[in-house]
Amino acid sequence: MRRIRVSLRKEVDASYDIVVEAGLMDRLAKELSGLVSGGRCAVVCDFTTRELFVPALLDRAEDAGLSCDVLDVPPGEASKSLAVFEGLLGRLRDLRYTRKDFVLALGGGMVGDLAGFTAGCYMRGLPVVQAPTTLLSQVDSSVGGKVAVNLPGAKNYVGLFHQPKKVLIDVRTLQSLPRRELLSGLAEVIKHAVIADAGFFEFLEQGREALLTLDEEAVVRTVATCCAIKAGIVERDEREAGPRMVLNYGHTIGHAIEDAAGYALTHGECVAYGMRAEARIANALGLFPESDLARQERLLDGYGLALDPLDMDPERLIDLAHGDKKNAGGRITFILPTAIGQTTRRDDVPLDLVREVLEATLARA
Amino acid sequence: MRRIRVSLRKEVDASYDIVVEAGLMDRLAKELSGLVSGGRCAVVCDFTTRELFVPALLDRAEDAGLSCDVLDVPPGEASKSLAVFEGLLGRLRDLRYTRKDFVLALGGGMVGDLAGFTAGCYMRGLPVVQAPTTLLSQVDSSVGGKVAVNLPGAKNYVGLFHQPKKVLIDVRTLQSLPRRELLSGLAEVIKHAVIADAGFFEFLEQGREALLTLDEEAVVRTVATCCAIKAGIVERDEREAGPRMVLNYGHTIGHAIEDAAGYALTHGECVAYGMRAEARIANALGLFPESDLARQERLLDGYGLALDPLDMDPERLIDLAHGDKKNAGGRITFILPTAIGQTTRRDDVPLDLVREVLEATLARA
Repeated sequence: MRRIRVSLRKEVDASYDIVVEAGLMDRLAKELSGLVSGGRCAVVCDFTTRELFVPALLDRAEDAGLSCDVLDVPPGEASKSLAVFEGLLGRLRDLRYTRKDFVLALGGGMVGDLAGFTAGCYMRGLPVVQAPTTLLSQVDSSVGGKVAVNLPGAKNYVGLFHQPKKVLIDVRTLQSLPRRELLSGLAEVIKHAVIADAGFFEFLEQGREALLTLDEEAVVRTVATCCAIKAGIVERDEREAGPRMVLNYGHTIGHAIEDAAGYALTHGECVAYGMRAEARIANALGLFPESDLARQERLLDGYGLALDPLDMDPERLIDLAHGDKKNAGGRITFILPTAIGQTTRRDDVPLDLVREVLEATLARA
Repeated sequence: MRRIRVSLRKEVDASYDIVVEAGLMDRLAKELSGLVSGGRCAVVCDFTTRELFVPALLDRAEDAGLSCDVLDVPPGEASKSLAVFEGLLGRLRDLRYTRKDFVLALGGGMVGDLAGFTAGCYMRGLPVVQAPTTLLSQVDSSVGGKVAVNLPGAKNYVGLFHQPKKVLIDVRTLQSLPRRELLSGLAEVIKHAVIADAGFFEFLEQGREALLTLDEEAVVRTVATCCAIKAGIVERDEREAGPRMVLNYGHTIGHAIEDAAGYALTHGECVAYGMRAEARIANALGLFPESDLARQERLLDGYGLALDPLDMDPERLIDLAHGDKKNAGGRITFILPTAIGQTTRRDDVPLDLVREVLEATLARA
């Protein structure tokens, strides 16, 4: 018997910058041209972001010495599929892309996930630059390197950790965002504040008008703060070994509601309901003070989030929250707030309490 | 403008062991059970390796406390496709596999590549153990973490670097290998000797009988030496930044011949022709002594490799060798031997010389 050791212990540096700026799109071509010398850029976008942002990019590409190819896909979650992934790979191949080239993900979360996964697999990995254009993707999915497509009935089941070379965020793209999408993003913004930053929570309390009218200074601060919070968490736990789970606040219940609603609600709306329920659970367990609970309730009210009663069966939501974990002992893991800006992880929440809180939350009692 | 740095500089350790042993399959279940506590094992195999090796594994799995699911695919390169990849992902999903479970690749290079890529993408990455059962995969593809499937007409265009947790090699699996497949693997064995180890080259000169009759001591030494050579190269260059290119000796011409033959020849047969041609180029350039060239010719003769004339057009092979690189200035990069055990990299080989050597090599002059 012979034993050979392959020693692959080494220092790697996948660090990158996130730039948050009002009007960044105007100089996108220039930002990109500096990144990869001589490389071509495959711009993955959907029909919407193609119309809104690609003409300006192409207008300026030549001057910036940037060669672009536009690879567009239909908008919507249905494009986050292996079939569309395969189509993009075929187009990169037809265009003779090599590892000297790179991919730009120009769009919301679907585009970022799809383009990032495609870049990560094509020829065993091209660099990807994320240019998220929705609030949800700017504050959440574009940072951290998680990319994926869906299997039928199994969201994000095929993917990678493929860190971007850079994240380029122009908050002006939010001006074209439907209000409902904006609010969906604000739910994740509020989540970042509750889990990690009491000062930021206060800013959200006071800055409601500024944010809802897309005041640029307020939006830049908001997006940058969320990115910094998420960056800090990702730095401690790039591959979801543990600490990154704090980002799941509101998501245990939120995902169950999202499933039960058949995706008729936006992700942020569901997370808002989830935060309401999970904060109440934390409060009932004596973990989260009444006054903090009231502040979160008021903040969600103020942004018009999770206001309507939902006609859903708590029992079904509990089943969905269990998901595959049912086999592992029947416990549901929750991230629960202990104060504005702090959380704890619990997997011993009595199901009777979950049921009771869900009934009250769904009825908006 | 706000700029946030995501600091992802860290020490990672993807080191692993390769075990080479005659009869290792008999205790495969036990080797696996120690690897992942409580996890289930998805055995990816083809119909052939299923029949040959899976019954013994399953017989011993229960005693070893190992829970196995068998995921088999049709044998042959056609299974290295996105369609088969999608099928495997669906089966893992139906079986409710999670990141606590792992994948065993039990078969030749196709199985290793397909299973490794599937494992690398499912839920953003399950561990994979490689148990290669052909000589080619034992000495080459199972070590180094390169996994992939093909796009139509574009071999290995979709893949990852996904290092295995362990490589388990039982040289007795070679007893069921068709002789042509054995010889194909021996071509890569000879390549390892030429690029890196003069002493091993001598062993191959003297050990021909032992190797061709699958003497276990000789085969274990041969496979282990090749793995050690490849491990050393991969350690210096995990992601093909440069040094790993030395493994391409014989492959510049070899791949062109493989393309031109429409895969009617085995990979090793093509590499053997490639080594003959590239060694002659090196000799003609004054890089590779006549005596070393003669030793390589005799060794290939002795193993019955690349003996027949090939009816191919040198001009077409040159075109194929250029491939996509044609746009990058028309140069072909060669790894050329400078002595038995040493190489250099050259991209200034005159095309007239390549043509002349090809003509002679194809005609077996």
